[in-house]
Amino acid sequence: MSNYSAPVKDMLFVMNELAGLDQVRALPGCEEVTPDLVESILDEASKFAAEVLAPLNATGDQVGARWHDRQVTMPPGFKEAYRRYAEAGWNGFDCHPAFGGQGLPRLLSAAVREMWKSANMAFSLCPLLTNGAIEALELSGSDAQKRTYLPNMISGRWTGTMNLTEPQAGSDLAAIRTRAEPQADGTYRIFGQKIFITYGEHDMAENIVHLVLARLPDAPEGVKGISLFVVPKFLVKADGSLGERNDAYCVSIEHKLGIHASPTCVMAFGDHGGALGTLVGRANEGLKYMFVMMNAARYAVGVEGLALAERAYQKALAYARERVQGRAIEGSPAPVAIVQHPDVRRMLMTMRSQTEAMRALAYAVAAAHDAAGRHPDAEQRQRNQAFVDLMIPVVKGWLTETANEITYLGVQVHGGMGFIEATGAAQHMRDARITTIYEGTTGIQANDLIGRKLTRDNGATLKVVIGMMRQTQAAAAADSQLSRIAGALGEGVDALKDAASYVVTCFGTDVRTVAAGAVPFLRLMGIVSAGWMMARSALAARRQMASGSTDPFYPTKIASAEFFAANVLPAAPGLAKVVAGGGASVLAIPEDSL
Amino acid sequence: MSNYSAPVKDMLFVMNELAGLDQVRALPGCEEVTPDLVESILDEASKFAAEVLAPLNATGDQVGARWHDRQVTMPPGFKEAYRRYAEAGWNGFDCHPAFGGQGLPRLLSAAVREMWKSANMAFSLCPLLTNGAIEALELSGSDAQKRTYLPNMISGRWTGTMNLTEPQAGSDLAAIRTRAEPQADGTYRIFGQKIFITYGEHDMAENIVHLVLARLPDAPEGVKGISLFVVPKFLVKADGSLGERNDAYCVSIEHKLGIHASPTCVMAFGDHGGALGTLVGRANEGLKYMFVMMNAARYAVGVEGLALAERAYQKALAYARERVQGRAIEGSPAPVAIVQHPDVRRMLMTMRSQTEAMRALAYAVAAAHDAAGRHPDAEQRQRNQAFVDLMIPVVKGWLTETANEITYLGVQVHGGMGFIEATGAAQHMRDARITTIYEGTTGIQANDLIGRKLTRDNGATLKVVIGMMRQTQAAAAADSQLSRIAGALGEGVDALKDAASYVVTCFGTDVRTVAAGAVPFLRLMGIVSAGWMMARSALAARRQMASGSTDPFYPTKIASAEFFAANVLPAAPGLAKVVAGGGASVLAIPEDSL
Repeated sequence: MSNYSAPVKDMLFVMNELAGLDQVRALPGCEEVTPDLVESILDEASKFAAEVLAPLNATGDQVGARWHDRQVTMPPGFKEAYRRYAEAGWNGFDCHPAFGGQGLPRLLSAAVREMWKSANMAFSLCPLLTNGAIEALELSGSDAQKRTYLPNMISGRWTGTMNLTEPQAGSDLAAIRTRAEPQADGTYRIFGQKIFITYGEHDMAENIVHLVLARLPDAPEGVKGISLFVVPKFLVKADGSLGERNDAYCVSIEHKLGIHASPTCVMAFGDHGGALGTLVGRANEGLKYMFVMMNAARYAVGVEGLALAERAYQKALAYARERVQGRAIEGSPAPVAIVQHPDVRRMLMTMRSQTEAMRALAYAVAAAHDAAGRHPDAEQRQRNQAFVDLMIPVVKGWLTETANEITYLGVQVHGGMGFIEATGAAQHMRDARITTIYEGTTGIQANDLIGRKLTRDNGATLKVVIGMMRQTQAAAAADSQLSRIAGALGEGVDALKDAASYVVTCFGTDVRTVAAGAVPFLRLMGIVSAGWMMARSALAARRQMASGSTDPFYPTKIASAEFFAANVLPAAPGLAKVVAGGGASVLAIPEDSL
Repeated sequence: MSNYSAPVKDMLFVMNELAGLDQVRALPGCEEVTPDLVESILDEASKFAAEVLAPLNATGDQVGARWHDRQVTMPPGFKEAYRRYAEAGWNGFDCHPAFGGQGLPRLLSAAVREMWKSANMAFSLCPLLTNGAIEALELSGSDAQKRTYLPNMISGRWTGTMNLTEPQAGSDLAAIRTRAEPQADGTYRIFGQKIFITYGEHDMAENIVHLVLARLPDAPEGVKGISLFVVPKFLVKADGSLGERNDAYCVSIEHKLGIHASPTCVMAFGDHGGALGTLVGRANEGLKYMFVMMNAARYAVGVEGLALAERAYQKALAYARERVQGRAIEGSPAPVAIVQHPDVRRMLMTMRSQTEAMRALAYAVAAAHDAAGRHPDAEQRQRNQAFVDLMIPVVKGWLTETANEITYLGVQVHGGMGFIEATGAAQHMRDARITTIYEGTTGIQANDLIGRKLTRDNGATLKVVIGMMRQTQAAAAADSQLSRIAGALGEGVDALKDAASYVVTCFGTDVRTVAAGAVPFLRLMGIVSAGWMMARSALAARRQMASGSTDPFYPTKIASAEFFAANVLPAAPGLAKVVAGGGASVLAIPEDSL
């Protein structure tokens, strides 16, 4: 029932044909990422995902993480799985080699992490947070902090957390009240309560390294007075061994809709005299360091959306093939498997096609991220970074919203059985529900997209992207087999262009009205970007077929792209209309007449 | 946290201005339904809903119905609430007066039932099933059966169930295997297992009257060999008192995603010698009797969607007003309540406007149902019945799908708190998830809509409805304040007309392709019908304002209709394109290449 089989073939197709694995391999430090290496890594990862992580997913949901007396016990099997995960070296996969990482490109780690998340999203959150903390220390930590923490975090012996949110400070970090008192020896004592701390406490690792946002006594108000501190669960002695228990405790965990195996902790710092920590980077610049990590975290949550969509699709397809119910609509001598019913097929194709599009978009952004970080040419780095910055809110926002649609359809394909928890389809829907919320809600992504990414360069980066979309459109139009795809993409791009021009023109003069259409704009940008990737996918498949391939994989890629063009892209003009014409009526009813 | 306040003002507006309470009052048997009576009933019902049912909703979810040794214990408070519900006479509200019912029109019971469902959907399912069973017995039972069961069922002392589904027979009742053996005394012994039986066992009533579909020994195969039986939990003696325990037991209940307080039972009939029952109506015609009830049940599930949407909106609005977070997007001296953020407002308006549209559509259909049953003129009865038949799959399909969207947004408005179960927003989303599945999935509704309701009269009924929509469009176009609404409705109706004409033309020749677009067609019909109701609502508000009303309620109705026109209706042309152009690609990938 909990089977998961990593879609390695589609992953390789996307990496090779759409994300440009060749170009990634040409980047400094990526020379060893040969096709053979990539295949063998995906192969190993898919085994680990299927054999070790996936079987724990349902148990993790049913048992959940359990709190007792400030300790958290993970569900059966998680501790052992984490040990194997760390021992196999998966944790330092794309970390810097200086402290034991393998330095592999993000394109590859995107695929590997998709597998962890598909197999067991709640488990995958522990390494996700650890990697975020590693990245923050790599970028901003002192040499001593790096030496003290990074080797054990990269190996996976210790895990990491990010402590931002407080009861009065959710999305608005300006409201943070946790305080840090300087000590004579240059360390700090931290006092305050943090909520929603993922893996703030658990029993899978020897130590937990908390990164904590707090205010110094003389700090300015608002976001410019927030500093970042590293606060380990156990203090680390000079020889690297573990010392005293620090005053950082998990005082309760949340009872949540999903990801039950991922402990969401209320953390109390300093209830017994102060939690000892050291300052990361410079005072009052904590938010800047966090923002660097945030892009990575937002991207990763987008991949969670992709991963849950893939898992939900596999489950729904298996059920639809197996469940016999009702005659075929055109008549049949006996009842048929429900996969033969056109509406079930529509649901499955809606799941499949959008999942493929999500993967293409996510991996393309990962490859651009690699180029942005490693390309020898500064202009190339800058160009790729601009693309990444523009697309991060789309990857976070559109992939997660679509994942909710897809996991919802996964339940629907199962009919009445989908509503029964033991079936497992509902877990994917419940788990997906957090992805549009944490690391910034869809509304926050959409405001970032229109308010910063789009308007700060007057739409210049999007213009470049639209130019690339037009090239794809033209290439598809030149192939008579792909003319429907070209037509639908063209209408989508027209709609996106119109909507973007409205946003850029009116944002300065009527920000509230434009912002009311931000999420529809994000959705529009999501489906058009995804439609672009699907058209590229169809073109790549046509190239393979033209060079003589008879692999049935390629015709299915074209059919999936056609489905997207005929069933998803037609929403684009309507969305553009909502962006440009819907905002005023959103705000028409005064707040107290609602 | 669990507050619910029935939207009595909007209910009365819809009843009076859109559903035609006047015309309903003119129907035979409805003379007493004066405005005063209606108001006082809604008033009483809203108190009962808010004070008795709503406070049990969260407990019901957390504790759930519990099974032990073939008995089901309801969550705390449910038994007492049910006693009060029955004693107050709510159960026989719209039942036939011959056996103690009050014979009130469906328009009024729709509003009252909306309240029960908003307040406590899991509770409301018990009377829903009882009412279905009452209706079946009223229509098809013998005089003896009516005398034996109806008075106690109408008073609410006994409850009722519908036993259709079996493990191998979900949506496909042809596969039913439960068998009925005739006895010498004219009764039957029933043997078989039924699943998904709502309130199949509980501790709130003295007796439970099961209606069971089963096969007689000589019955033909398939749906033409299914008979309906009444099988009480306790046999009823000639004097009406309860006799022996019948051989009908609940052997387990399901652990479900939502409606935890509603016991979903596996029922075993005849494990200990046979469950005694009597035949309802004629042999082998059971499905016909069930189908009569099915329309009512499908309609009721549509109202569940409306009710959950209303509750989710009230909760989200309260939170958005109270939660202070972040500065206003145009700048503000201090953090503001999130209701002031444009994207939060967009979500609230998406919830509010669609909820109002759902109510208008549902009540309009209820009023037509009253006319179809009671109008003295046969042509009027027939015309109204045709409208009801056409709209039932839309009420069931569109209202429930939209309720899922709305309860999803309800979680989103709460941000991270929405994912925490104690907040309560997630419960509405989980509860809503069943509504697109039971009483026929959305796919089944959509097939009913295109395959029977639309094509069997070659689109004639829809043509009449489109004519009414055009009249509304013209009236709105004649009012300069409503021109945007008229324009959007016009484009929506054009799209509906095109899509319907495609369906009617191609259904006979290419049924699979057309059926692949059935759900998009249902969604299109839903938003256009709803947009029609919202335009009528704006016209009614304008009339009130023209006659001098300064009630701020009316401008909000116009604003809500504008929102619907500018933010929901623009999806119509895209949906029409999907209906007519999406089907082929749905089916392009062969089943085993998926």
